[in-house]
Amino acid sequence: MEVFAVEGLPEVRVGDDVAELVAEQADLREGDVVCVASTVVSKAAGRQANLSEFPASERAERIADGIADIAGETKDPRFAQAIIEESEEILTEAPFVLAVTRFGHITVNAGIDRSNVPDADLLLLPEDPTDCAECIRAGLREYAGVDVAVVVTDTSGRPFRLGQRGVALGWAGTPAVRDWRGESDREGRELSATVQAVVDELAAAGNLVTGEGDGGTPVAVIRAFDFGDHAGNDELYRPNDKDVVRDALREWSHVRD
Amino acid sequence: MEVFAVEGLPEVRVGDDVAELVAEQADLREGDVVCVASTVVSKAAGRQANLSEFPASERAERIADGIADIAGETKDPRFAQAIIEESEEILTEAPFVLAVTRFGHITVNAGIDRSNVPDADLLLLPEDPTDCAECIRAGLREYAGVDVAVVVTDTSGRPFRLGQRGVALGWAGTPAVRDWRGESDREGRELSATVQAVVDELAAAGNLVTGEGDGGTPVAVIRAFDFGDHAGNDELYRPNDKDVVRDALREWSHVRD
Repeated sequence: MEVFAVEGLPEVRVGDDVAELVAEQADLREGDVVCVASTVVSKAAGRQANLSEFPASERAERIADGIADIAGETKDPRFAQAIIEESEEILTEAPFVLAVTRFGHITVNAGIDRSNVPDADLLLLPEDPTDCAECIRAGLREYAGVDVAVVVTDTSGRPFRLGQRGVALGWAGTPAVRDWRGESDREGRELSATVQAVVDELAAAGNLVTGEGDGGTPVAVIRAFDFGDHAGNDELYRPNDKDVVRDALREWSHVRD
Repeated sequence: MEVFAVEGLPEVRVGDDVAELVAEQADLREGDVVCVASTVVSKAAGRQANLSEFPASERAERIADGIADIAGETKDPRFAQAIIEESEEILTEAPFVLAVTRFGHITVNAGIDRSNVPDADLLLLPEDPTDCAECIRAGLREYAGVDVAVVVTDTSGRPFRLGQRGVALGWAGTPAVRDWRGESDREGRELSATVQAVVDELAAAGNLVTGEGDGGTPVAVIRAFDFGDHAGNDELYRPNDKDVVRDALREWSHVRD
């Protein structure tokens, strides 16, 4: 399996066709997995926003008060309002805002980005990353003439462990997970609880070569990944009623709408 | 960057030298990252155990009662006792046992494996995975004559998302994280909160090629990964006093020692 960054992409702007830009820079092959950072997907889709669009509610004022002063400017209540409007639920309001996005991803600040946005204050996550992955996949079939998988990625922190790692927000052309249940181990015993979050691992692998900052590039290609002859499904986001950690956070944080 | 599985490894037994076995099967190069599944590290270190070694305490009886009946046989109170003895703290007792291992990793059942263990009931995680990674690294320098990085890996579930993904338990020859803070983005703005959990991403990338089950192999090599000229450190496990999710789980679960 080979993993490489796609170099030479221009700064993506509203209305750009991400598939076309990628097809121009990368020599894609049948079966490649193309990891595209959600930042460029959002930029092309016009998900830039300004703080002035989010007049703060009372709740936003309260949340902004409680946010740890990490980047020196996150205490703006309009930023808290943007998080509220982008979220299905706020799990914690302090010391950081952990939110459930409308498409099921749980992350700090609903994944709203305050760096990486020329000419705007904020960059919101794509509304439906899997829909975006499907569009890019269709576009790559048209422009590059190949059938690939597409993973729309982000980097995200996580409980228990420090640092961020690449995660999948949306995907097309591959199941989200590879299901080994019912298959046997080396000794012939049945594997009972093994479901592999393949799209997250692909996003993590891609993130190793794309980098952050001024030398960073938003697209990575994974070549010759073999999903193999296994069952798969698209259940990546833990359902609300089967998430003990979410229950615990709700109880602990006493969040009121 | 290239990622490939090391094929042809024999079943590892107590006392085996993992580095020697890997050096015999893989043509390693300077700078490779060698991902070794904790299962083989544990097997070589004699971390096999039997349920009879863990006479159940009252607490273990209580825990076993509460465990969801996932694999049909996890309700054995001696299994709960093994988890207790392998853990620094139990965060939840039900519906599953989430434990903090002595080296800081937080995972279900303290990572104790009930498949994949010939001639024993259980396989415990290595006592000090980073120490194991250092030993294997030194061994590979001796047997293969190259300076590599070693990551001792496991697969583990996680809050918010379904499925398991590869994670690092211990590492040597590379910092755990790559620290982009203080560097600039494309627009010259300072990156404020970007610390990349590189060893976890390496473990995830390796896990894409090793597989589970009877066709699985426990060692992957990542070639030509470039850490680059960045700051790094070894803080991967979130400290106890800076882990909101751990606090919430403690409060929610009302665990008594």
